Amino acid sequence: MAIHAELSRLLGSEHVHEPSPGSPYNRDASGRRGVVGEADAVALPRSAPEVAAVVAWCYEHDVPIVPRGGGTGLVGGAVARDGGVVISLERLHAVRELEPALWRMFPEAGVTTRHVQRIARENGLMFAPDPGGAEQSQIGGNVATNAGGPHALKYGVTGAWVSGMEAVLAPGEVVDVGGWIRKDVAGYDIKDLLIGSEGTLGVITAVRLRLLPAPETALALMVFLPDRACGCEAIANVFAAGAQPSVLDFLDATTLALAARSYPAAGDGEAVPATAGFALLVEVDGSRAQAEAQRAELLELFAADAIAVHEHRDAGALWRWRDGINPVVTAVRGAKVSGDVVLGVERLHEGLEGFEEIAQRHGLKPCAWGHGGEGNVHATVLVDPEDEHELDAAERVMDDLFTLVTELRGSVAGEHGVGLLKGGWLARQWDAQAVEMHERIKRAFDPKGLLNPGKTLAR
Amino acid sequence: MAIHAELSRLLGSEHVHEPSPGSPYNRDASGRRGVVGEADAVALPRSAPEVAAVVAWCYEHDVPIVPRGGGTGLVGGAVARDGGVVISLERLHAVRELEPALWRMFPEAGVTTRHVQRIARENGLMFAPDPGGAEQSQIGGNVATNAGGPHALKYGVTGAWVSGMEAVLAPGEVVDVGGWIRKDVAGYDIKDLLIGSEGTLGVITAVRLRLLPAPETALALMVFLPDRACGCEAIANVFAAGAQPSVLDFLDATTLALAARSYPAAGDGEAVPATAGFALLVEVDGSRAQAEAQRAELLELFAADAIAVHEHRDAGALWRWRDGINPVVTAVRGAKVSGDVVLGVERLHEGLEGFEEIAQRHGLKPCAWGHGGEGNVHATVLVDPEDEHELDAAERVMDDLFTLVTELRGSVAGEHGVGLLKGGWLARQWDAQAVEMHERIKRAFDPKGLLNPGKTLAR
Repeated sequence: MAIHAELSRLLGSEHVHEPSPGSPYNRDASGRRGVVGEADAVALPRSAPEVAAVVAWCYEHDVPIVPRGGGTGLVGGAVARDGGVVISLERLHAVRELEPALWRMFPEAGVTTRHVQRIARENGLMFAPDPGGAEQSQIGGNVATNAGGPHALKYGVTGAWVSGMEAVLAPGEVVDVGGWIRKDVAGYDIKDLLIGSEGTLGVITAVRLRLLPAPETALALMVFLPDRACGCEAIANVFAAGAQPSVLDFLDATTLALAARSYPAAGDGEAVPATAGFALLVEVDGSRAQAEAQRAELLELFAADAIAVHEHRDAGALWRWRDGINPVVTAVRGAKVSGDVVLGVERLHEGLEGFEEIAQRHGLKPCAWGHGGEGNVHATVLVDPEDEHELDAAERVMDDLFTLVTELRGSVAGEHGVGLLKGGWLARQWDAQAVEMHERIKRAFDPKGLLNPGKTLAR
Repeated sequence: MAIHAELSRLLGSEHVHEPSPGSPYNRDASGRRGVVGEADAVALPRSAPEVAAVVAWCYEHDVPIVPRGGGTGLVGGAVARDGGVVISLERLHAVRELEPALWRMFPEAGVTTRHVQRIARENGLMFAPDPGGAEQSQIGGNVATNAGGPHALKYGVTGAWVSGMEAVLAPGEVVDVGGWIRKDVAGYDIKDLLIGSEGTLGVITAVRLRLLPAPETALALMVFLPDRACGCEAIANVFAAGAQPSVLDFLDATTLALAARSYPAAGDGEAVPATAGFALLVEVDGSRAQAEAQRAELLELFAADAIAVHEHRDAGALWRWRDGINPVVTAVRGAKVSGDVVLGVERLHEGLEGFEEIAQRHGLKPCAWGHGGEGNVHATVLVDPEDEHELDAAERVMDDLFTLVTELRGSVAGEHGVGLLKGGWLARQWDAQAVEMHERIKRAFDPKGLLNPGKTLAR
């Protein structure tokens, strides 16, 4: 076909695929029904100029352009629902610059998040963001979705660590915005606008990342509490006491029960207490003295209400267990449907309770976990992937959940972005004039509407 | 006149002024020749709806709108050069919400920065940004210019602490963007776009600020070094050693000589050493143990090259001295002209040297100080305000400085923004397509070009 031939001319035919409907390039990690692409071609450029050449050709020929990172998204942001060309950034995998003494690294978009973290660590530094799926997810996609992770509580989301970026803007120009300077108030922040824009304003090709000296120590605690009310109060108490843990994640009763079997033995070999109805995964970091002082402060804080507190000397095992929650929960009934929402911390209890009621009303089993200190909830229902009735019910649960969240003045997206699945919700979450500006920004960057069409739609 | 009558109808006649050419509302703190407004009226609304009413009337009648905070800017951003209505936010001075246990405060735009800092401190919290002129500057203006200050090194600039904001967008709508949630990746970041947009995209009326628990201790050091090369190397060494001071400011030889007389006696009553050719003002903070550990680390780091290191037990006195540099330098010849630029930290020495050569070439006396850890330089020449020849030369110095900075891939604005005085420099600092997007964003938010016209122009 024409697209294939034209792209082959630009990239070489071995770097242009025609994906089958079942190809991974037509899916993401959500496995959701509506998330199926119909890409006409997958382009695998090797460089920013090659990305620009593909964008320029597509823009001239009115062909949709869908940038794609590691495919770990959960909202359909990386699939070509309306056809067109998927631009996979996986071959842009060079680290162009690494300056440990200046705390900075310049990876191309296709470098995996884990690789970025590893290089930083090998140089005594830390790349703080730690979204799930780091082995597969790519730094460009992380920036395009402004990915979070547990440590965002203390260190902020991915965007907080982006000093500058190289991107291809329509109709096919490579731009370098931001640079390495540590401060800049000249002009509108185009870099910040591209961060989290999910490929709808441009294609990110390389990212200038700020790093931090690695903290000397991180200490992990599991805090088991009798119930949700008590757990949410414990989170509020952490703030009220002025404590600043690096992680303050939570698991509700169902999640805890499902994950209890794989829970790693802490120092004294304890298991998850049978009476626990809520748990917090807390980490403190810094110098050893500082981390220990914080741990002592938190232990005192939790002493009154906790059923048990486990100190995990092998934090690695605890984190592997935490990362395993997703597959464990999925395995129960074969699939799950999650809405990754945010509530004000003071609204967390109300939101969790409301979500449980919603799921039960629709006859589905709910569970929730997430980043409690940020009110970021992975609100999940367990489903049988073959049961269309349950899948329909799950969609209704998500609709009701998003309605609840907007009523509570939260956000429908705490991670992954709007994508395909949350299109239209901004119009309910935002004031009308802000929605209008959202659409004008899109038209300013993409007058032909070809950059990741159908994604991040405000209404 | 018509404008006055119309605005009086909206706000009451006592809240609408007709300013004289010499009125403070037609000036800013720069005192620069080109920075003179010709406002037709100054409007003093009391609330966001009143701001919206003024904006709506102006927008309908094609009258320029110039939002104004405390008037401490240095680039002419707050003056109505093309006439129209100055909207002074000073009567929006309520703190709408204060939740110490949730680390947050919701001041209106006209609350002074010092008041925000004071309320935070009285509640055991800290509002980290500390731009100069805090008694007079207002939080709305700070957000509109994304103000910095010494502590931005560790804590980031003002924008990093803005969770959400209320603003009036054209053609006169109040919007509330961002809210209180601690994480949000739904849609383009309109809040971030308004931060630092200098009133050219909308009028900020209230700001949701995140606070932090106040650090237990802050310890201040003055480090005296023989010369600029040695001083810039010391700054680089701080990063290379992985130290994380909260402040890493610098003073060059001339600044140091001018400010030496008012230097506060440190612990042992020492004065500025006669042989010092560069100085660093360093602060570390945290728990007492943590601050002391950091101080020890830095003392060791500076030991090899420093002529002297003074530990200031009364950090307040040291900071008052530091804040006094501006008036001290101004007093030498009656005026000064400053360009507030940013260089990569690794380019700092080259930039400072280049600036000195430029000033000397134009026959003016240069001095420089600023936030060394961020490469943010207050590059200054001393002038006689009555000497037109010197004032012309100073303009040429600034032009050459900005040229140098763009060649070194720095930024022409590290604080205060582009305003009137740096208009057009973005086109030399940025790639062409980014400049194009800058202008499209402006048109998207302000199709009639009435919001602070002539400011933040990219070319």
